[in-house]
Amino acid sequence: MDKKVIITGYGVVAKELCQFLFTHGENIKRKYGFGLQLTGIIGSSGMLYKEEGIPLERLLTYGLGSKALNQFAIDTGMELIEPIISGDVLVECTPTNIEHGEPGLSYIREAIKARMDVVAVSKGALVHAFSEINKAAMEKGVRLKFSGATAAALPTMDIGEYSLAGCTITSIQGILNGTSNYILTSMEEYHLSFSEALQLAQKKGIAERDSSLDIKGFDSACKILLLTNGLFRANLSIKDISIEGIEQITSGSIEEARKRNARIKLIAEARRVHGQVQVVVQPCEIEQSHPLYTVNGTNKGIVFNTVEMGAVCVTGGASHPRGAAAAAIKDIINLYRI
Amino acid sequence: MDKKVIITGYGVVAKELCQFLFTHGENIKRKYGFGLQLTGIIGSSGMLYKEEGIPLERLLTYGLGSKALNQFAIDTGMELIEPIISGDVLVECTPTNIEHGEPGLSYIREAIKARMDVVAVSKGALVHAFSEINKAAMEKGVRLKFSGATAAALPTMDIGEYSLAGCTITSIQGILNGTSNYILTSMEEYHLSFSEALQLAQKKGIAERDSSLDIKGFDSACKILLLTNGLFRANLSIKDISIEGIEQITSGSIEEARKRNARIKLIAEARRVHGQVQVVVQPCEIEQSHPLYTVNGTNKGIVFNTVEMGAVCVTGGASHPRGAAAAAIKDIINLYRI
Repeated sequence: MDKKVIITGYGVVAKELCQFLFTHGENIKRKYGFGLQLTGIIGSSGMLYKEEGIPLERLLTYGLGSKALNQFAIDTGMELIEPIISGDVLVECTPTNIEHGEPGLSYIREAIKARMDVVAVSKGALVHAFSEINKAAMEKGVRLKFSGATAAALPTMDIGEYSLAGCTITSIQGILNGTSNYILTSMEEYHLSFSEALQLAQKKGIAERDSSLDIKGFDSACKILLLTNGLFRANLSIKDISIEGIEQITSGSIEEARKRNARIKLIAEARRVHGQVQVVVQPCEIEQSHPLYTVNGTNKGIVFNTVEMGAVCVTGGASHPRGAAAAAIKDIINLYRI
Repeated sequence: MDKKVIITGYGVVAKELCQFLFTHGENIKRKYGFGLQLTGIIGSSGMLYKEEGIPLERLLTYGLGSKALNQFAIDTGMELIEPIISGDVLVECTPTNIEHGEPGLSYIREAIKARMDVVAVSKGALVHAFSEINKAAMEKGVRLKFSGATAAALPTMDIGEYSLAGCTITSIQGILNGTSNYILTSMEEYHLSFSEALQLAQKKGIAERDSSLDIKGFDSACKILLLTNGLFRANLSIKDISIEGIEQITSGSIEEARKRNARIKLIAEARRVHGQVQVVVQPCEIEQSHPLYTVNGTNKGIVFNTVEMGAVCVTGGASHPRGAAAAAIKDIINLYRI
């Protein structure tokens, strides 16, 4: 049976998701035994809804955002309606808002009420209200996936859930933010100061104009928070995390580390200590033998330390919007595969 | 509902599996909603069978192999009986025999006939008869997992199945044999010849006395064969793989590579070329920027190149028998989780 999918938001990742559904839909159906039918997209001016599935090929000739949805609706004789939250799975792709989690949080609440599974690509709602969302999902018997919100194409939640199923994870260490890692790598490689490296990253389009969430460690903190709550079954909030960014790192400290054959990396770490989980984001000097030592530039990586399987390290994963869309598709497939 | 598990073979991995079931059984039940009940162990002198579950705590005070099973049976008033192949899942742990796949192949055939799922830890049967086993499993509607046979605690099949679900894998490159990697690393680090490094590995208990399967690339070939058949849905046999080992590698060639900031690694590679899958095992010079460059000593690693998620690299995973047992447990959990 086909699974009915609703997407909230129609930005660049949501559009890539539509592209993925269009190009890979038949393959997914053949391989996993169920199709994915996009029945609705909720933009800021209303919802594009079609019970039998939105015609993707035509939609993809339009641009992004509510304007594109609106124009598409006019051209195809449809109209943008009040959101209908129904179907099998809601994929939450609205812009991340860490402070109040909206509008994603409201959509997720409604989806859970309507007994839909939820795949989150944006972090805001989960960071803001993980515990509430998780509890509501358990009460309604629906499931929650959020690979797209925890480093996207770099497998993180999956590793803990599937590859390490049954094992005891003692700690997780990750380089989870590409922008800050790029800055640190550039400082070392090109002998730049922090602000020169930041400017370079901005010039290259890697860092946004306001990149404080990245360089202050907040983005990394959000990701390790979700991983910790998901994999350690913790109920932490962002306030429980000790966060230090990379703004104070000098070229001198990078050079000092290099002399010791080490590198400074912004490490997000969750660790079980006496039955408690401690989560810290801070710049750390790591040695050449550390599996994250070679994770440079915009790359990301994560190490899971386990009792039974030793350390398992994953690196890579494309950091473009298509990678994030692919992460959401993977979550949907893993929800419904047999 | 509890899942009934039968183990074939009672060597070191099988015993670790019993240990795992004993120590982690309650946790697994709580976390995944089903218990794992070991109802039978088949050794070479007969089967230890108990419908309500073999008392693990007591069994674990005995040694390994049929002798231990026999003594345990005597001491507990049980007897070793003719094998009864019934239950939910058979975990195949008999010694690997690449030439004819026995006795594992017969057990797997019988398990599939009895509509049991199969988790293979030994490679022999699958390498020898992948296509037959796969076809039979599909016909009977049972499932086949083999993480333990494809690098054990290093996640390989899972990554392709779960973390890259829905994506197009274009190629896989792996360092899949710890012994040969240890030899190559020692040749570089300690400036040894191939035979000196082999002797060192043997002295350290890393290489067996007859380590020809490792150094001639055959073990790597078996693993990449299973990964290729599993993830590319191919039907290749070992004869389809071009295999070259590391016996011809000289300290001179290692040194030459080092001058170019490169390393020689035994790489097992599967690649889609014009709709065909090509599989090659051979020593390759890889550069410092390659994600497998830092996989040294007995470590293993694998890179998946994909269209949608870029390259995803996984390294690590304990190579002791407990890691292999944990891989089998993970497979069982992934079979039955909801």
